[in-house]
Amino acid sequence: MRAAVIAGGVGGAKFVKGLRAALGPEDRISVVVNTGDDMWLTGLRVCPDLDSMMYALAGMNDAERGWGREGESERVSAELAEYGVGWPWFTLGDLDLGTHIARTAMLQEGMPLSEVTDRLCARWGEAFRAPRTRLLPATDQEVETWVTAEEDGQVTEMHFEEWWVRTRASARAQRFVQRGVEQAGAGPGAREALAEADVILLAPSNPVVSIGTVLGLPGVGERPGLPGIPGIGEALREAAVPVVGVSPIIGTAPVQGMARQCLEVLGYDCSAAAAAQAYGARAGGGLLDGWLLAEEDAAALPALEGAGIRARAAPLRMRDETTSRRLAQDALELAAAISS
Amino acid sequence: MRAAVIAGGVGGAKFVKGLRAALGPEDRISVVVNTGDDMWLTGLRVCPDLDSMMYALAGMNDAERGWGREGESERVSAELAEYGVGWPWFTLGDLDLGTHIARTAMLQEGMPLSEVTDRLCARWGEAFRAPRTRLLPATDQEVETWVTAEEDGQVTEMHFEEWWVRTRASARAQRFVQRGVEQAGAGPGAREALAEADVILLAPSNPVVSIGTVLGLPGVGERPGLPGIPGIGEALREAAVPVVGVSPIIGTAPVQGMARQCLEVLGYDCSAAAAAQAYGARAGGGLLDGWLLAEEDAAALPALEGAGIRARAAPLRMRDETTSRRLAQDALELAAAISS
Repeated sequence: MRAAVIAGGVGGAKFVKGLRAALGPEDRISVVVNTGDDMWLTGLRVCPDLDSMMYALAGMNDAERGWGREGESERVSAELAEYGVGWPWFTLGDLDLGTHIARTAMLQEGMPLSEVTDRLCARWGEAFRAPRTRLLPATDQEVETWVTAEEDGQVTEMHFEEWWVRTRASARAQRFVQRGVEQAGAGPGAREALAEADVILLAPSNPVVSIGTVLGLPGVGERPGLPGIPGIGEALREAAVPVVGVSPIIGTAPVQGMARQCLEVLGYDCSAAAAAQAYGARAGGGLLDGWLLAEEDAAALPALEGAGIRARAAPLRMRDETTSRRLAQDALELAAAISS
Repeated sequence: MRAAVIAGGVGGAKFVKGLRAALGPEDRISVVVNTGDDMWLTGLRVCPDLDSMMYALAGMNDAERGWGREGESERVSAELAEYGVGWPWFTLGDLDLGTHIARTAMLQEGMPLSEVTDRLCARWGEAFRAPRTRLLPATDQEVETWVTAEEDGQVTEMHFEEWWVRTRASARAQRFVQRGVEQAGAGPGAREALAEADVILLAPSNPVVSIGTVLGLPGVGERPGLPGIPGIGEALREAAVPVVGVSPIIGTAPVQGMARQCLEVLGYDCSAAAAAQAYGARAGGGLLDGWLLAEEDAAALPALEGAGIRARAAPLRMRDETTSRRLAQDALELAAAISS
């Protein structure tokens, strides 16, 4: 079984840990990870979602705090603050900085981000081997999500992480822009993983700024004698295998994060049904075959079925590896039912 | 009194601390610091001598270990080693990394190294204010000392820091090259400080790879309507004020470091007299007016006087701020005697 997952950071990582537990040692998991939150900070390339995913799969994440490395300290950050460098509201832990420095050094040697990511993951050994789990940046290029937002009566543009971490999504977002997307394309590994998968899963990550930014990566144009390579959204629409998503929303609230403010920008409510509607049914030009929502939201099932999405209610809260594994199994079972 | 000092790292810093204690709050000290040891390491710009000088003047250096910051830790370094990045034999402490990251971020914003250095020093406040002490990189350009050295029967080229730290100068040096020097020139602040000084002092630093690299920085060529600006060695030869050096060697051994291996490359013995000879008497086209050597080396005084260098014996060992201040006073007194 080759499973491809499109995912953001922390919530996506819990789901992938569950999937890893649900699959056997011979299976393969390719995780296409959102890179829209990536940024240059004090001269270093920071990739929040790739790092959250890597630390969680390596078992080295701070589960209590919800982000970063376990046993983290902030000696370097305190120095940077003394020198007046960096964003005071964005914490760079010492262990985390090791990752950023290593990544930046490799990028500066000319290595593409996908290869850098392979090398960083290689450090963690066994954790990525059985089943073989590969993290694939959605793109090797720098495509960053910027937010046009209103704050104190002023409309400004800011990096997504500034909007997310500094304003806690309180600055009213008007739109999200993928800066650099015109010159970029989906990462080669990401496209291959989607083309070779037996099942494609959308993790319960933010549908707009995590999964949405991955889906927004365009294809690479035709070259003489070669067909064009589809973008990631296009690849999902055309996939010969089932595409099953997991709702990141229970009732009227996201399980974590600030999906409400993101969905609002696109004109959607914050609900499991609206998130599915944002992805769209494959029958209607969208990309979903199946959708898992919480048991509390079972009332939405008939409408989704009517719209051509095979929807099922399941326990969505990933409290530990058992509940995460159960959720991944539910997603795989729904995919199997769609295939048969 | 405006004093200009040309200096390397640790030994130079002790001397400048002594000079600071010897001068009054209205005096000014400009320290032209060697940048030949600077390097890019894991994507970060590391300036060993500037940092040694800054930490020592700020009172934050590790005096016991002899280099780096007091109370240092190495959490980030351990991460880099796990990722297989960097030089395992070159320690980057966490606090020290804060400096490297801040510097690199500023350089990447387009700030010249001299301005970066001012900003880094500004953090330490009072420590640099009375007397006002300014650190001036010998050049704003990247001019790095590389060593052609024989190791295990192979002749290779390596960065000076690799030769110094990894091989502990055991790889037999054949020559030193200032890479990038053709496209570079002495830093603007450094040239101004030398032009405006009332006295120019050569700290007891390595005469070849610390002071020597600073002296080797060429001037900037003539532009139409403007005279050429002399290089640093030239500026000293032409200075209207006394130039007094302090021997880094007592007897046949450097007070610290590996000056012997460096002087050998240039065909000089390791002695106080040979170091003075390497700089040369101003009367003979060199740059020294005066020279302080250790009382143990007083036998060399007549020969130096005969060569046109006003030499005096003095206690050279800087064990604490009292002995450092005394040495700086001796240098200033010799300069005053030369002027009168």
